[in-house]
Amino acid sequence: MKNIAVIGYGVIGKRVADAINVQDDMNLVGVCDVISDWRIQTAIKKGYSVFAATGQAMGQMKMSEIPVAGSMQNLLGQVDLVVDCTPKNIAAKNVEVYKKQGIKFILQGGEKHETTGHSFSAENNYSTALNIDATRVVSCNTTSILRTLTALKRADLLDYARGTLLRRATDPWESHLGGIMNTMVPEKEIPSHQGPDAQSVDPDLDVITSAVKVPQTLSHMHYWNVKLKKEASKEEVLNAFKTSTRIKLIHYDQGLVSNNTIKEMFMDMGRPWGDMYEVALWEDMLKVVGDELFYAYVVDNQAIVIPETIDAIRALTGIDSDGNKSIAKTNKSLGINQ
Amino acid sequence: MKNIAVIGYGVIGKRVADAINVQDDMNLVGVCDVISDWRIQTAIKKGYSVFAATGQAMGQMKMSEIPVAGSMQNLLGQVDLVVDCTPKNIAAKNVEVYKKQGIKFILQGGEKHETTGHSFSAENNYSTALNIDATRVVSCNTTSILRTLTALKRADLLDYARGTLLRRATDPWESHLGGIMNTMVPEKEIPSHQGPDAQSVDPDLDVITSAVKVPQTLSHMHYWNVKLKKEASKEEVLNAFKTSTRIKLIHYDQGLVSNNTIKEMFMDMGRPWGDMYEVALWEDMLKVVGDELFYAYVVDNQAIVIPETIDAIRALTGIDSDGNKSIAKTNKSLGINQ
Repeated sequence: MKNIAVIGYGVIGKRVADAINVQDDMNLVGVCDVISDWRIQTAIKKGYSVFAATGQAMGQMKMSEIPVAGSMQNLLGQVDLVVDCTPKNIAAKNVEVYKKQGIKFILQGGEKHETTGHSFSAENNYSTALNIDATRVVSCNTTSILRTLTALKRADLLDYARGTLLRRATDPWESHLGGIMNTMVPEKEIPSHQGPDAQSVDPDLDVITSAVKVPQTLSHMHYWNVKLKKEASKEEVLNAFKTSTRIKLIHYDQGLVSNNTIKEMFMDMGRPWGDMYEVALWEDMLKVVGDELFYAYVVDNQAIVIPETIDAIRALTGIDSDGNKSIAKTNKSLGINQ
Repeated sequence: MKNIAVIGYGVIGKRVADAINVQDDMNLVGVCDVISDWRIQTAIKKGYSVFAATGQAMGQMKMSEIPVAGSMQNLLGQVDLVVDCTPKNIAAKNVEVYKKQGIKFILQGGEKHETTGHSFSAENNYSTALNIDATRVVSCNTTSILRTLTALKRADLLDYARGTLLRRATDPWESHLGGIMNTMVPEKEIPSHQGPDAQSVDPDLDVITSAVKVPQTLSHMHYWNVKLKKEASKEEVLNAFKTSTRIKLIHYDQGLVSNNTIKEMFMDMGRPWGDMYEVALWEDMLKVVGDELFYAYVVDNQAIVIPETIDAIRALTGIDSDGNKSIAKTNKSLGINQ
């Protein structure tokens, strides 16, 4: 049984910890952070061993009566692989420590591709991540782009894709920090970074994106204009999307008319935090016009990378050499099915 | 001097009334509505003659001490042309009255093209509206599409255009009715109606749009992917846009990073209600990649059709047979310049 640590117990880290915890082929040794408030107290209540990332943090945790299991060094000494979910750019510094100690590591999409030299998306390149030392699970938006466009590519339908990304302004729990109201804030650069980021996994993808922040916190929404290689039927396109187990075809006509209704459905389903690991793509809105394809979907930025991270753990540690088996196992453990 | 009436004193009607009032070649005889609250009281304060659209409305206005100038019939008896700015689908009923009495009329974009048989956009088809009995000024989004794509077409650059429209949820003054919060609501149909609507003015335009409502009230924002007829430089594209006097090139780098900053600038400029009659297109965000063009712009849904409506009045009444002269005159009167 491989031993895993989660460094950074924030929006992604706490979800990764829970997801590791429900796998039967890996062991969560502990989580590590600098915080000592309600966020880390929840980890204690869940029974996770909590480690302090710094000496100062350990002092504060003890003052707050957090039963600290030890330092980050103590934690690293017990594990085969680290999932680093610290805020953007902090992981890059931790990497030096992981490398020095010969611990495998997984970074999240806020870090640069160059930091690991490998970027991961389970349905794309599980096999190239087998037994390597490090990878980066690409960001939420990029993961959704890879899942959908790769499905079209597998069916030999994709010529090129142009997307407009409506980004959530900030995460729900911290909407008072970075939140925006009654406005829309474009990303200055067109093309936006998500296209090139997808190419870090599949250099052959012809994809260009533009992005704009909108005043809501629930999820991202993408609108795509895709040039197909040939004229195709709607059925052919849907069949292509159905080859991914992590695309969920949804129906506007069944009352799923917005991203808050979709969120509510996933809450109703009993998913933790209402998490949606799938790309929710509107089947009835999807339109084929000649050799052009138009569709829209929703991306849960807090959840979509969680199953990818579990698969990345299996690939890097060699728990399973077969990507499809890992994906199926992860899907089952998290309740993902079509 | 041609005599004009405005029927419906709402978001568009009150702006059209003010715009007519500052022209020196047309006469605003009066405005007509059913309301008797603060909205119509403002019209009285501005010195406009207020007429009652129904007998019941006249009774209520008198009770509210609005000095009613007469009935809608009284108003219609004094005018050459009516601008009908009543809410969607109401104008279609009024049309029967206008036709019966032989009064020329202009409808707004919420009505169907078939109701008038002519749809108007000043830079496109002023000449075909000369001295005709009726036209429809196309909607805010459609007006912006026509201005921008026609500019590219004039420069022989446009092959086809695909757009994603981020629509304001409702108007600022009535955000408690129709307002949405912390969600995004797609229009069910892809393609959305704006593409075909643009074709009601220019049937040769190859344009497909998708639309989604976002939780803000200030303006619409469009993202466009355009296929050019040939590879072109950014300068060529900008020069094409500069041939329209109603496209304003703006700069993200000058602090115009969102639609609320743009709104504030137009307020600072002293425009009534901060109205932006122009399409505000980001010059520095605009990107040409080979024979593809990417750009974003903002559309003030309350204001963009106002200058178009003034030009439509001149065309239908024959005040000026030269569209360019009318556009220049309207621009000057409303403070529109590049």
